[in-house]
Amino acid sequence: MMAKTNPGRFFEDYSVGQILHHAVPRTVTAGERALYHALYPARHALYSSDAFAQACGLPGSPIDDLAAFHVVFGKTVPDVSLNAVANLGYAEGRWLKPVYAGDTLRSVSEVIGLKENSNGKTGVVYVRTRGLNQRDETVMEYVRWVMVRKRDMDAPAPDTVVPELKKVLAPEDLVVPAGLDFSSYDFALAGEPHRWGDYAVGETIDHVDGVTVEEAEHMLATRLWQNTAKVHFDLTFRPEGRLIYGGHVISMARALSFNGLANAQMIVGLNGGAHANPCFAGDTIKAWSEVLDKAETGVPGVGALRLRLVATKGGAPFDLRDAAGKYQPGVLLDLDYWALMPL
Amino acid sequence: MMAKTNPGRFFEDYSVGQILHHAVPRTVTAGERALYHALYPARHALYSSDAFAQACGLPGSPIDDLAAFHVVFGKTVPDVSLNAVANLGYAEGRWLKPVYAGDTLRSVSEVIGLKENSNGKTGVVYVRTRGLNQRDETVMEYVRWVMVRKRDMDAPAPDTVVPELKKVLAPEDLVVPAGLDFSSYDFALAGEPHRWGDYAVGETIDHVDGVTVEEAEHMLATRLWQNTAKVHFDLTFRPEGRLIYGGHVISMARALSFNGLANAQMIVGLNGGAHANPCFAGDTIKAWSEVLDKAETGVPGVGALRLRLVATKGGAPFDLRDAAGKYQPGVLLDLDYWALMPL
Amino acid sequence: MMAKTNPGRFFEDYSVGQILHHAVPRTVTAGERALYHALYPARHALYSSDAFAQACGLPGSPIDDLAAFHVVFGKTVPDVSLNAVANLGYAEGRWLKPVYAGDTLRSVSEVIGLKENSNGKTGVVYVRTRGLNQRDETVMEYVRWVMVRKRDMDAPAPDTVVPELKKVLAPEDLVVPAGLDFSSYDFALAGEPHRWGDYAVGETIDHVDGVTVEEAEHMLATRLWQNTAKVHFDLTFRPEGRLIYGGHVISMARALSFNGLANAQMIVGLNGGAHANPCFAGDTIKAWSEVLDKAETGVPGVGALRLRLVATKGGAPFDLRDAAGKYQPGVLLDLDYWALMPL
Repeated sequence: MMAKTNPGRFFEDYSVGQILHHAVPRTVTAGERALYHALYPARHALYSSDAFAQACGLPGSPIDDLAAFHVVFGKTVPDVSLNAVANLGYAEGRWLKPVYAGDTLRSVSEVIGLKENSNGKTGVVYVRTRGLNQRDETVMEYVRWVMVRKRDMDAPAPDTVVPELKKVLAPEDLVVPAGLDFSSYDFALAGEPHRWGDYAVGETIDHVDGVTVEEAEHMLATRLWQNTAKVHFDLTFRPEGRLIYGGHVISMARALSFNGLANAQMIVGLNGGAHANPCFAGDTIKAWSEVLDKAETGVPGVGALRLRLVATKGGAPFDLRDAAGKYQPGVLLDLDYWALMPL
Repeated sequence: MMAKTNPGRFFEDYSVGQILHHAVPRTVTAGERALYHALYPARHALYSSDAFAQACGLPGSPIDDLAAFHVVFGKTVPDVSLNAVANLGYAEGRWLKPVYAGDTLRSVSEVIGLKENSNGKTGVVYVRTRGLNQRDETVMEYVRWVMVRKRDMDAPAPDTVVPELKKVLAPEDLVVPAGLDFSSYDFALAGEPHRWGDYAVGETIDHVDGVTVEEAEHMLATRLWQNTAKVHFDLTFRPEGRLIYGGHVISMARALSFNGLANAQMIVGLNGGAHANPCFAGDTIKAWSEVLDKAETGVPGVGALRLRLVATKGGAPFDLRDAAGKYQPGVLLDLDYWALMPL
Repeated sequence: MMAKTNPGRFFEDYSVGQILHHAVPRTVTAGERALYHALYPARHALYSSDAFAQACGLPGSPIDDLAAFHVVFGKTVPDVSLNAVANLGYAEGRWLKPVYAGDTLRSVSEVIGLKENSNGKTGVVYVRTRGLNQRDETVMEYVRWVMVRKRDMDAPAPDTVVPELKKVLAPEDLVVPAGLDFSSYDFALAGEPHRWGDYAVGETIDHVDGVTVEEAEHMLATRLWQNTAKVHFDLTFRPEGRLIYGGHVISMARALSFNGLANAQMIVGLNGGAHANPCFAGDTIKAWSEVLDKAETGVPGVGALRLRLVATKGGAPFDLRDAAGKYQPGVLLDLDYWALMPL
């Protein structure tokens, strides 16, 4: 039997500067848009109503920013994380152009760092991934780093290159979509009266609601982004339980954050994020947010909030870490992002 | 922590004449249409085929009437039923214009009645809700009344106003969509030969088929309508089982009623309805109908049937009520509606 | 109570030459397309990206060939297999025109064979089914035969007519879609470098990945194709477990076959197939393929591979049959089809 199937890349298959053209471009449509609303309790008005989006200066309601992220991310899995032991972090994520129904997305990554671990069995690979549309415009980009197995334990270690990554995107790094205009923003239709000026740095918001997750749902979602990593689907491969794609938790928590952050309409920056503990079917995802920073964007009427979004297993207390600095077992996600909100 | 999340309205927050502009308008598309067919065994030809709908004088296949209802209803939940103890009834529901892919719906309610209960802890709120499209045309309207908790038990009772509601819409209240023409109706393509004249008042039809409901399905459906009431999603909030949104049962029963009522194409009136018992995952929904009345509509070729649609837990006998007049435990839904059928 | 519901046809209701116009035409859209990607780990680029499809000479990305098959098949269930005891086989399946979002499909079958079984209780019905679009063009056709119960055991046996069916479609029977052109095919975007010339007759490919199937998923899929046979949905009808629609297994296995057959883009012929054992929720579907034959198509750059696609319950060994020639209990599907691949 010839080996025509994809074995994935091992640590020694990466080199700094290498460009990975990820396979299977994807046209996203009104179908993906509707499925996003069926899979997550998503209610941000800009992504729910063409009329609302048009009143905000956009041609129509974009595909959810996180859906765009999931599609771009999903394409990278066969080349970046098929043999990954752990997804270690994200940085410098930026949404550069809204994605609309009919757009076709593909992904390209550049290897920007490599560091073999001292055990000689694994190494850390840093990639900067860009999502491109059918006009070859970059719609989003982000850095992630993963721990990948070596194929051959005797393969020599590469030169260590650890990229300098911004801990936090500066406000001037954020891109406000062309035409976005909140001057006639309808707070009643959006669902909450709270504007940028109503939020204070340090403020926390308990988003109250929870969703108990089912196997069928996370598999529908993960497949929709063409992320086919077998840990998410195959119970014979993981008899202890299928691991829920971390992005499913991100989208669930972000959708729950509508209750208290209904006007944090667009995600424009991803400063970092950790999947603190694995999530399994039967877990009840709840969420809370903390306002980490505030900034003006230079666009009249449009402010930016830097938010920590924390997903927990239902009822977990509000502290993130134990005495040793480790995430509490009830914490699923600790995400740091920038969102746009009417001033 | 500031309270930025929506606590919902309590009984004393309503006053007769009050207008509630519900949040989060929604553009419905071919995606919602496809999901409706995945979630329910829906086969009415007018909602399945553009070509069939065009042969009936419409510009294309509309979004299912019940999907339009669910979207309009879902918007009202945060303002009307977040603190509701019970959904007590529906009346005077009318579908005024078909909804097509691309339409954006929003909802507006007027408080038309208030009655504090004698226990002083709760009261009944009556609202008339209208669903509007992007041209501010009313696509549907209905009255519902719910029992809502008081925030402050010492708050004074409002003047009692109980609206006069029609027990049954008169045939002349029904609106036949402009252009609807059944003169070249294809019964073979529609799936059954039975026309309006073949149904007799008092006739009952057992729709035979059943669907055993799964958690993932009702949550997908309920989220799709942006109804995010936590009783439907959060098992930590309801450890005894997530309550299935009553509208999910309505849509399931209506779809099952194709088998025997394939030509009852369009729903145009909702006379009343009761969610007789709660529905949970694992229940098998079956349905039967009774012809309650028949009327001509004034539009050549188009008749109206008034139907009772009963959903039961699989195998429940055909009697609705026990000796005391209470719904039998196996009855889930008792709905009274008007549908259009070729003469 | 009048019997207005469909009792289905029994063996004596069929006659050779009879034409069955199946009900409920169906407009397929971007919604069905997105749902297909949520339900199956489908990654063939031609069905994922409009841009990729256009680079291959098509107007856009078609609806998956198997989705078209499922829609056409689903329409036949109420007339052909409602009283079927077994789905015995497929032959002479051909895809004649790609189906695009917006197309409306309907199905017409001709009874081409009848054979009463010696027990006098059942008989075999052979039908040739064609799927037609809104322009009355045949988009696909196939023969299937089913064992159907007799209503009346004393009804006389019809003359036995067993149609001559091709064991395998000849390469010249296959229809390459107009305009298909693989001359600028992008193997990197498609996901694998293997072209037609890289596959050898007799070669087998283990597709590695597996999916553990959930109830909600197969019901969503089966309803989407408007196949409402109660064995798939009603646990009170089948307390031993809902039977998963055989087409769900076909689509799952085909999608899994991307890993090793990413360039077997289009399905153009179905030579035969057996649902070797029933599939239930909780089973983990895995797949392997064998190259049975190779042919050129006459269209420059486009080759055809004849493939055996086998679906198994996770981890079943690679032998299909036991010593007595019976399918091993772990085999779910044994399908024989032709696919198009760049030369």
